[in-house]
Amino acid sequence: MEKIFFTPGPAQLYPTVQKHLLEALNQNLGSISHRGKQFQGIFAETTSNLKSLLGIPEGFNIYFTGSATEIWEKSLSSCAGKSSFHFVNGSFSKKYFEFSKDLGLTAHKAEAPMGEGFDISKIEIPSEVEMICCTQNETSTGVQMPVADIHSLKDRYSDKLVFVDAVSSIPHPVFDWSKVDSVLFSVQKAFGMPAGLGVWIVNQKTIDIAKALKAQGHKATPYHNLLSLVENGAKNETPATPNTLYIYLLGKIVADMLGKGVENIRKETSQKANLIYDFCAKSEMFDPFVKHLAHRSETVVVANTKAPAAGIIESLKKENIVLGAGYGTYKDSQVRIANFPALSVENVELMLEKLKKLPA
Amino acid sequence: MEKIFFTPGPAQLYPTVQKHLLEALNQNLGSISHRGKQFQGIFAETTSNLKSLLGIPEGFNIYFTGSATEIWEKSLSSCAGKSSFHFVNGSFSKKYFEFSKDLGLTAHKAEAPMGEGFDISKIEIPSEVEMICCTQNETSTGVQMPVADIHSLKDRYSDKLVFVDAVSSIPHPVFDWSKVDSVLFSVQKAFGMPAGLGVWIVNQKTIDIAKALKAQGHKATPYHNLLSLVENGAKNETPATPNTLYIYLLGKIVADMLGKGVENIRKETSQKANLIYDFCAKSEMFDPFVKHLAHRSETVVVANTKAPAAGIIESLKKENIVLGAGYGTYKDSQVRIANFPALSVENVELMLEKLKKLPA
Repeated sequence: MEKIFFTPGPAQLYPTVQKHLLEALNQNLGSISHRGKQFQGIFAETTSNLKSLLGIPEGFNIYFTGSATEIWEKSLSSCAGKSSFHFVNGSFSKKYFEFSKDLGLTAHKAEAPMGEGFDISKIEIPSEVEMICCTQNETSTGVQMPVADIHSLKDRYSDKLVFVDAVSSIPHPVFDWSKVDSVLFSVQKAFGMPAGLGVWIVNQKTIDIAKALKAQGHKATPYHNLLSLVENGAKNETPATPNTLYIYLLGKIVADMLGKGVENIRKETSQKANLIYDFCAKSEMFDPFVKHLAHRSETVVVANTKAPAAGIIESLKKENIVLGAGYGTYKDSQVRIANFPALSVENVELMLEKLKKLPA
Repeated sequence: MEKIFFTPGPAQLYPTVQKHLLEALNQNLGSISHRGKQFQGIFAETTSNLKSLLGIPEGFNIYFTGSATEIWEKSLSSCAGKSSFHFVNGSFSKKYFEFSKDLGLTAHKAEAPMGEGFDISKIEIPSEVEMICCTQNETSTGVQMPVADIHSLKDRYSDKLVFVDAVSSIPHPVFDWSKVDSVLFSVQKAFGMPAGLGVWIVNQKTIDIAKALKAQGHKATPYHNLLSLVENGAKNETPATPNTLYIYLLGKIVADMLGKGVENIRKETSQKANLIYDFCAKSEMFDPFVKHLAHRSETVVVANTKAPAAGIIESLKKENIVLGAGYGTYKDSQVRIANFPALSVENVELMLEKLKKLPA
């Protein structure tokens, strides 16, 4: 029997991954030049498909890196000369904050207790801050920042860049692209791909600020930085030899998603999330970690377990269902259940059936 | 008819790539956790196989990044507090030198005219230099630094770190591991893989110097740096979610190479290089770019063309043979012919037959 992965990344692969990878090999995409027309066509198709899927308007560009974590470093290095602000609602947003300090910036934060979100209207952001970094969906805690909260930041702080890490939620959140400057994610979550590619969506304001910083003598990291990505991206190329196979694969999976319809994917995601949270509410064994409904992630459900989590995970593994362990110190007391597009309603129902049958 | 790629990277894939990729998908390696035993086993197997293939002794460790270009940045950021020295023998070594300047270091260089190497005994390295960076095989010009020259640097400058970029030659050069501190490469050259993985081999001295710099308050880039790679590598893990599929694939290709025997691979590489250079010497149409025999790369042959290079490349493409174009300003006047292990003697003979039949 095939295993089904409910892990929050790396995650269940999109059902068409193998077909597209074989086609890529068949087209020699592991061998072609990254400075030729064929590669440029792949780059253009993948970015164009992503723009269609996410409703990204003119004026935004899309670039590729090795991971989303790399984009944390490159965004801070390229777009902040002095100071960034971070909404810390779990372990990954905390790392983004720490990257800022390690790069020598003045890093500010608003930090919520684990499992909680923010009352964003009460948070004041210091005037020196250039970049506001939001982790829209915290993969460690299952806490989300509602997109309306993120949009409100732009209303209050129109002079600052609003950066959004949407690693484990996109394409689920519906962004108003006039209220965000930059969105980043990786492909091994909701896009159901093997890990090894980061995706960075930026608007012209973000690029202009990186250019102004450079003009002032600011030095961004030389390997990847926003301006090296922009310069090469203008030719549908990358600064160094890229992971062509995965850029192709992403374009094809996004095309499959467009075929299904992003609205249908989002509806199904909400439907599956409701099934999982309803189960937890009725269960004696599970208790959603995030209490405040508006802050509950629909794509990564984190639940406290009454029994040790390892036993539950082990029991499900015997049924070929792989749940995610709690993150860090929550390893023994929580499970994380991903709810990504590669998982069908039937997959979720099957997983919940198995959970129901566990001895109390 | 199948295409054969003589391009210097991305290059001809190793014949077993598809088989191993399918096996990886079959084992769900695109979905497994990068913090679990299965991944740790893959990491351990790949690094162990590489150590066997390259004869790497105890005391060296191997780490993975997104590309070799990334390792240029991370090596300088982690291991040089003030100053690096670069042997510039082409466009890629020049970029490594420029990365140093962009990171705010004092970068020194010895620069050879394009197509030429160094009389290394005449080159003095300033005392302030902490890292000596050698590009053992310049993919842009086909110039190699003989390993004996690199080893002599350690004899003369035992206090400095000797770093070797062997991107487009390894596993061909036979290093004396007591005379190099760090070797870096990427997988889309002689290992015949799709691009998207860099490999960094380091000894304890390199790690100790990075630790000493950190203790002095030096801040390396936060995403990947040597010490974050070391800390996670001690658990056979990586700092962020890695390209598990490619780490597995590399391990399997190296196992295939071990099955063939590295000595046999090196012998065959020399045999094929001789065939190509002999052809060039006798041809009216081609002339090796690198005149000095000791500086001629065996793995990337660069030849000046009498006729425009584009026409030659186009003619061969009709025969399903893909040659590399000249790099940068040499695009119209040179071809680059890779000679990697994925290409058999028969492949090389076929390619040369086609070249011989071109109209003069």
